[in-house]
Amino acid sequence: MSRFLCSRMQALAPYTPGEQPSDRKYIKLNTNESPFPPTEKALRAVAEAAENLQLYPALDGGKLRGAIAESLGVSYDEVIVTNGSDEVLNLCFRAFCSPESPAAFADITYGFYPVFAGYNCVPYEIVPLKEDFTLDSRDYIGINKTVFIANPNAPTGIFLPVSEIEEIVKSNPDNVVVVDEAYIDFGGESCVPLVKKYKNLVVTQTFSKSRSMAGARLGFGIACPELINDLYRLIYSTNPYNLSRLNMAAGLAAVEDSDYTRRNCAEIAKTREDFSRKLKSFGFEVLPSLANFVFAKKEGASGRMLYDRLRAEGILVRRFDSPRISDWLRITIGSRKDMNTLAEKLRLITENLL
Amino acid sequence: MSRFLCSRMQALAPYTPGEQPSDRKYIKLNTNESPFPPTEKALRAVAEAAENLQLYPALDGGKLRGAIAESLGVSYDEVIVTNGSDEVLNLCFRAFCSPESPAAFADITYGFYPVFAGYNCVPYEIVPLKEDFTLDSRDYIGINKTVFIANPNAPTGIFLPVSEIEEIVKSNPDNVVVVDEAYIDFGGESCVPLVKKYKNLVVTQTFSKSRSMAGARLGFGIACPELINDLYRLIYSTNPYNLSRLNMAAGLAAVEDSDYTRRNCAEIAKTREDFSRKLKSFGFEVLPSLANFVFAKKEGASGRMLYDRLRAEGILVRRFDSPRISDWLRITIGSRKDMNTLAEKLRLITENLL
Repeated sequence: MSRFLCSRMQALAPYTPGEQPSDRKYIKLNTNESPFPPTEKALRAVAEAAENLQLYPALDGGKLRGAIAESLGVSYDEVIVTNGSDEVLNLCFRAFCSPESPAAFADITYGFYPVFAGYNCVPYEIVPLKEDFTLDSRDYIGINKTVFIANPNAPTGIFLPVSEIEEIVKSNPDNVVVVDEAYIDFGGESCVPLVKKYKNLVVTQTFSKSRSMAGARLGFGIACPELINDLYRLIYSTNPYNLSRLNMAAGLAAVEDSDYTRRNCAEIAKTREDFSRKLKSFGFEVLPSLANFVFAKKEGASGRMLYDRLRAEGILVRRFDSPRISDWLRITIGSRKDMNTLAEKLRLITENLL
Repeated sequence: MSRFLCSRMQALAPYTPGEQPSDRKYIKLNTNESPFPPTEKALRAVAEAAENLQLYPALDGGKLRGAIAESLGVSYDEVIVTNGSDEVLNLCFRAFCSPESPAAFADITYGFYPVFAGYNCVPYEIVPLKEDFTLDSRDYIGINKTVFIANPNAPTGIFLPVSEIEEIVKSNPDNVVVVDEAYIDFGGESCVPLVKKYKNLVVTQTFSKSRSMAGARLGFGIACPELINDLYRLIYSTNPYNLSRLNMAAGLAAVEDSDYTRRNCAEIAKTREDFSRKLKSFGFEVLPSLANFVFAKKEGASGRMLYDRLRAEGILVRRFDSPRISDWLRITIGSRKDMNTLAEKLRLITENLL
C-alpha cells in the first residue's frame, strides 16, 4: 500500500478470485466456467464488430439490451447491461445502500458482497444460514435493509423458492432486494417475472456461466424502470461506455442462439445429478444444487487435503477458508469426461488408494 | 430518480457523452474517434479469442499489460490496464482523494473530472485556465491536493510542456498528480519517463484515439509499482475481471502494430495543421492543438448557431454549454475528405452564403 492511498480504501479486504494458474494444464473446475465453447455465431459476430472498433460502442447496452429484454419478456427500460454482473452488483451497493442505510446478506454466499460493501463504505448485517446451509426467509422478513440474495446460492448451490423471495420483497417495501441469479439457468426458477409486480426488486444475471461467455464480461440487471434509471445514472457517472463493441456483439449472438444455451444447461444439469449420485455413493455429503457446481465434503477428509491432492493430480476445484465451510469443496460441473476423472480420483483419495 | 436512491448519489450530475445519433448518416466529428479502422490484425485476434470465451479472461491485464510495458519502456508492475482510461481515472479519484483530501483541476478540461469527484464523494478545487486557455503551472505549485491535468488538454488541445508538469509533481510530494494523456500521441511529449523518477505521478493513456479502438474500451495507467498496486487493490474490490478476452486481444494487436498507429497519428497531425490553417484563413480563431481535434470559434458567430447549421448539413461537432467556451466548437480531425467538406461548410455558413 502506498502512503497516498486514502484511509477509507486502506481498510479494504479485496476479493480473491479462483486461481487461474498457468504452471501446467489443469482440469479446471474451480471458477464455474462452462465446459462448452460459446455459440459459433459469436466468432463471426465479434470479427465483424472489430471492423468498426475505431468508433465508440453504443451507450446503454445497444441492441443487446433490447435482445435481453425480448428474451425475458420485459421491456427495454427494465434492463441494464453491465461489465459482468459484478458491475451491476457493485452499482446496487452504491445506489441503494449508504453509510446510513446498511446491506444484509448471508454468512455463506458470494464472497464479493462484503467487498462491494467495503468499497462503497456501506455497513452490513450478516445473516447466518441455517445449520443445513439453507436460507431461512423469515430472517429477512421486515429486515429493513438492502438485501442481497444469491439464488441459487453460491457456493452451496441451494435454491430458494420464488415464493419465499416474494415474501421477503413484499415485507421490505422501503428497501431494495437484489436477487443475484448468476446460476439460475441450471434448474432454478427466475424471479424476473416479479419485477413487473414490485418496485423494490432487482434481479441480476450473467453471460459467464450458462451462456459460455465468462471471457466476454457481460451481466445484466432487471428491475422497474425507476431503479434501472438510478443504475444508469451511476454508469453515466463512472463509465458510460462500459461495454465494448466486441463484448456486445458476442452477447447478442448468445441471446440469439438461446437453443444452444438451453441444450448446454440441460446437459450440465444432467451431469451434475450423475456426478452428485456418484459422489454420494462414495460416502460424500453433497448439497442439493441447482447451479453448475456442487458443494461436497467427506466426513474425515479435510477440505485442504482433498484440494491439495486433487491439485497434485492436475484437477483444480475451489475451497474457502471460512470456518463453517473449510472442509467443503465447490466443484464446477465440467464435461462428462472430466467429471468421471474427478469422481474416480476422489474415490481413490478418500479410500486411501491414491 | 427512485425513492431508493441514496442521498449521496441523488446529488450526482452525470457526464454527458458526445451524442451518437442514429437518425441519419452524419460526418461524425464530435467524439474524437479516429478516421482510420483498427489494425487488421485485430480482426483475426478477436475471432481467435472468441473461441475460448467460455473461460474467464486473464486477471491483471494479461499479456496486454506486458506488451504495453515493453512498448513504453517501463516494467510490468508499473502498468495497470483498465476498461477505458475512464476506469483508471475513476479509480485515481477513489484511491488518492477522499472527503478530507480534495482534488484540483482546471475549469476547462475533461468534463468527467467533477463527475468522478461527485461519484466518489470527493471535494475539489477548480483552478481557472488563463484568459488564453493555457494552464499556468504556477497555480499548482505546492497546491497540496490531488491534481488532475489533461495533457494535451481537452477540449482546447493545448499542450503543457513536460518540464512544467515536472515542477508541479516535484512541488507536491505528498499528493498524487494524475496526467491524463488521452491525446498524447498526436504530437505531445509524454510524461511516462518521469514515472521512474517520481513516486507520486500517474500517467493515463487510452486505446480510444490514436490506436483506433474507442469501441474496445481499453485504457491504462503508468506509475510506480506502489501506486499501481493501490489501483489494482481497488479493481480487486469491484471488478477483477475488468477486461474481456476480446478487448485484450484487440489491444494486443494494436500494441504489436505500433507502426500503423504511428503512421495514422502523423497523418492526423498533418490534416489538423492544414485544417487549422484553412479555418484561420476564413477568420476563425483556432487554438494551437497537439490533439486529434481543434478548438475553434469565429467572432460574431455563436457556437450554438454554428453547431446547429452544421448538424443540419449532416456534420456533427461538439460544443459545450459552459460560459467561457459556449461559442467554441471542438472539432475532431477526421479524414482529409471530411475535413475539406467541413471547412467549406464553415466558410459558406460564416460568409452567410449557406
